[in-house]
Amino acid sequence: MQWEGDRLWILDQRKLPRSIEWIEARDTTTVARAIETLAVRGAPAIGVAAAYGVALAALKLNATMKSIRIAIERLKRTRPTAFNLFDALERMQTLLDTMSTIDPERLIREAIRYHTEDQSSCLKMAKAGLTLFGKQERVLTYCHTGALATGGIGTALGVIKHAHSKSRVSEVFACETRPLGQGARLTVWECAQAGIPVTLICDNMVGALMNTRKIDRVLVGADRIARNGDSSNKIGTYMLAVLAKRHGIPFHVVAPSTTIDTSLATGSAIVIEERDEKEITRITPGLKARKNVIIWNPAFDVTPAKLITSFVTENGLCQPPFRKQK
Amino acid sequence: MQWEGDRLWILDQRKLPRSIEWIEARDTTTVARAIETLAVRGAPAIGVAAAYGVALAALKLNATMKSIRIAIERLKRTRPTAFNLFDALERMQTLLDTMSTIDPERLIREAIRYHTEDQSSCLKMAKAGLTLFGKQERVLTYCHTGALATGGIGTALGVIKHAHSKSRVSEVFACETRPLGQGARLTVWECAQAGIPVTLICDNMVGALMNTRKIDRVLVGADRIARNGDSSNKIGTYMLAVLAKRHGIPFHVVAPSTTIDTSLATGSAIVIEERDEKEITRITPGLKARKNVIIWNPAFDVTPAKLITSFVTENGLCQPPFRKQK
Repeated sequence: MQWEGDRLWILDQRKLPRSIEWIEARDTTTVARAIETLAVRGAPAIGVAAAYGVALAALKLNATMKSIRIAIERLKRTRPTAFNLFDALERMQTLLDTMSTIDPERLIREAIRYHTEDQSSCLKMAKAGLTLFGKQERVLTYCHTGALATGGIGTALGVIKHAHSKSRVSEVFACETRPLGQGARLTVWECAQAGIPVTLICDNMVGALMNTRKIDRVLVGADRIARNGDSSNKIGTYMLAVLAKRHGIPFHVVAPSTTIDTSLATGSAIVIEERDEKEITRITPGLKARKNVIIWNPAFDVTPAKLITSFVTENGLCQPPFRKQK
Repeated sequence: MQWEGDRLWILDQRKLPRSIEWIEARDTTTVARAIETLAVRGAPAIGVAAAYGVALAALKLNATMKSIRIAIERLKRTRPTAFNLFDALERMQTLLDTMSTIDPERLIREAIRYHTEDQSSCLKMAKAGLTLFGKQERVLTYCHTGALATGGIGTALGVIKHAHSKSRVSEVFACETRPLGQGARLTVWECAQAGIPVTLICDNMVGALMNTRKIDRVLVGADRIARNGDSSNKIGTYMLAVLAKRHGIPFHVVAPSTTIDTSLATGSAIVIEERDEKEITRITPGLKARKNVIIWNPAFDVTPAKLITSFVTENGLCQPPFRKQK
């Protein structure tokens, strides 16, 4: 994601690793559509894109306070689960509320600051996370939590890449992550680019992996974390946590504090997005709508805090409960 | 699967539900290739096909004891995990050993008998399994264990279909079953054909399903069962069993006794087939062999007996240890 004066360039993650294509966003709607269609995805990256989306609304020649508020509402409706989206929009709204007349440059600077803070958070998490590892560990991760999913080097995958550069991680195991294959497409690609040996498995092979290979640690990201530490993340994360517990493997959630929703006491109130059934059915020719057939496609699940060994944020290793910091 | 005098007709399961195509097998090699490429799959169905494969070898004009033994060895090499394959070939070998000259008709009759016994086992399992259910239960199943996977109405799915006809099951939840989608392609198709409401999920959604919907029971098949009850089945079954345990959901294995390998004390000695990485990568354009990237594709995993509430065989509901019956 790159800001260029009056427009946002978004690397289209749907096309990777087949091809590298950029979306040029000069208005809020293009950003909102990019978020909805997962051209940009990953909770921190969604937050950064949304902040720029507000700046783009302010850059319109005929922008009004009302038109910017409508743009913010449009962005809020893109995806319900990732808290970073709402955190970023609240930041932009708060600044807007201090203005008597619209100052696009200040809004742009705020979006850039939000982006830069996320970059900095990633680096801090990578350093804090390093202390988790022994030597040459074999690490399992899920979905994609690298550079593309954030404004910086990544959350869980950022920690892993940093630990690999310090010889603390020797090998990564990546889950495909159905239905959209963020693990197969993005994590494998990013590990290969970084020269980290990576083994791809289907999501249903995690149990067999833990049974037959030595896995030292599991690191995942998060989309929204409640005060008690219950964490929503890509669908299937809960299954990984249950299996890790059974096999005595430490399980860590890596996320910036912008992912923590201190308004929620527990994870039970987290809204889980349900997405289009076509995401699932398109690999199965002939499985079209038949009588009596329903397709269920929840995009996230909630992992109870009890299954999480520790959290890594930009403030270091930590444990719930989490309190509002600002 | 249908025997027709001197040839075996195999419904090509790879093409379902897109199209219905039959393979005409007039020699052992065609049967062996059909098993290897999963045109015919499901442990009991593999056993039945292999028995007919031996009969086809005996029907050759120039058949000798040696050529039939070579055919049996060929069939043995098709797939390592499903025990029914070896059970069927042993049955045919045992009959062959009683012959001083080759009697193709007796071998054909033995293959037909093996097929008929499997049909009968399916019906007996369906009746025995019925006693598991209360009223209108919501049942989760995995992979495909219906008519196509056996010589009869199926194992786990046979029980479920029978229970649905008696109003004991109201709804089925089917897992996609990566990488080959037997759940999405075959279980959904067979439930829809039978008029059973079926909901398809990806394999990584099982935890979310158990957390948010009421699931009364899990029924799965098996490919090889050790004396102590450890059961190998399609990759991912172990994960289902672990999650079922956590959520207090009864977990049942449905399989004919031809799946029980009484030579094995525990599941640790079960050979797990690893299949071609292309089965996984073909849905991810651009994910071709890159440096540092490995694809791991085990076709089965082993569920420890402790996680299995009960077994359903043609002899009724039962518990390990299992002993040799013949």
